[in-house]
Amino acid sequence: MSNTLNALVEALRRLPGVGVKSASRMAFHLLQHDREGAQLLAQALQQATTRVRHCSLCHTFTEGEVCATCQDPQRDATKLCVVETPADQAAVERTGAFRGRYFVLMGKLSPLDGIGPRDIGLAKLFERATDGVVQEVILATNFTAEGEATAHVIGEALKQRGLRVTRLARGVPAGSELEYVDLGTIAHALVDRR
Amino acid sequence: MSNTLNALVEALRRLPGVGVKSASRMAFHLLQHDREGAQLLAQALQQATTRVRHCSLCHTFTEGEVCATCQDPQRDATKLCVVETPADQAAVERTGAFRGRYFVLMGKLSPLDGIGPRDIGLAKLFERATDGVVQEVILATNFTAEGEATAHVIGEALKQRGLRVTRLARGVPAGSELEYVDLGTIAHALVDRR
Repeated sequence: MSNTLNALVEALRRLPGVGVKSASRMAFHLLQHDREGAQLLAQALQQATTRVRHCSLCHTFTEGEVCATCQDPQRDATKLCVVETPADQAAVERTGAFRGRYFVLMGKLSPLDGIGPRDIGLAKLFERATDGVVQEVILATNFTAEGEATAHVIGEALKQRGLRVTRLARGVPAGSELEYVDLGTIAHALVDRR
Repeated sequence: MSNTLNALVEALRRLPGVGVKSASRMAFHLLQHDREGAQLLAQALQQATTRVRHCSLCHTFTEGEVCATCQDPQRDATKLCVVETPADQAAVERTGAFRGRYFVLMGKLSPLDGIGPRDIGLAKLFERATDGVVQEVILATNFTAEGEATAHVIGEALKQRGLRVTRLARGVPAGSELEYVDLGTIAHALVDRR
């Protein structure tokens, strides 16, 4: 294979979840059937890496100094929802059930991967949570081992600072039949019954 | 999400096998953890789309007028192996069992997808196969319905032109146990026994 083609396959392999076979298939597809798509992708990558940075208030991706959500005066500044990624933030937004503000960790605590409090901007979060306006912090990290640990660490630290800290409710998912729900979920739903 | 980020996700979705969730995950990964990789990928795409074209003899991807394999004087010009893609060519090369030349269709006949003889360069193939030097054409298209149909069409046309046409042998894969081999494969291996 030509060097240029090899370089393209190697570059595509850096994408998460893409091995050498997928990368070769992608390179073949782009060069044989969609050169316009390849050009578009090159431009989009170039623009995103130069323009996209982190919101100085909530750490999510934005092009300006402060993201649109943080700028929106309609938002309830007394409630701060902590999520792991912009995708999680989008999921919460789609519910339409939350009109407060966000803090996006852009990751989760993961000592085994060397990701500590500094990498997920906890100092910034604590600063923002204790600005005198925020009254409640809603922990909406994932319900995985690492997400739970991250929520625990943040929760303890914020409670010490006298803030009201809540966590998304655990329970039986909407539309599901008890027979097929795992035991841990049913046990949590029993404890948190209302 | 910002427009630049949306554009990146949309561009990544044009890659084969990538849906909106994978594309979002890729964009997040590149911007949060691997901006250098994103820059590299942008450059590689740019260079590949401007530099890579088709070999004028065998149609595979190359940067020059003629690819390295077609230029190699050590290759046996009397044998021409027809494959669907550069990846298939690489698979045949890795065996070390073929020292002839190749013709890469860059696809396969697929009437349902509107891919006809012109799209896979059959006129060029017939021209090359009947240059007076080629004595045997080995059909190494895939053993799928479309690959078989493509081999059939090419084979019939070349036989009419008086060429020797062979097809890769079908049979039991090396290292496999008969118990687990599908019936069609065993039936072919019986017919083609030697």
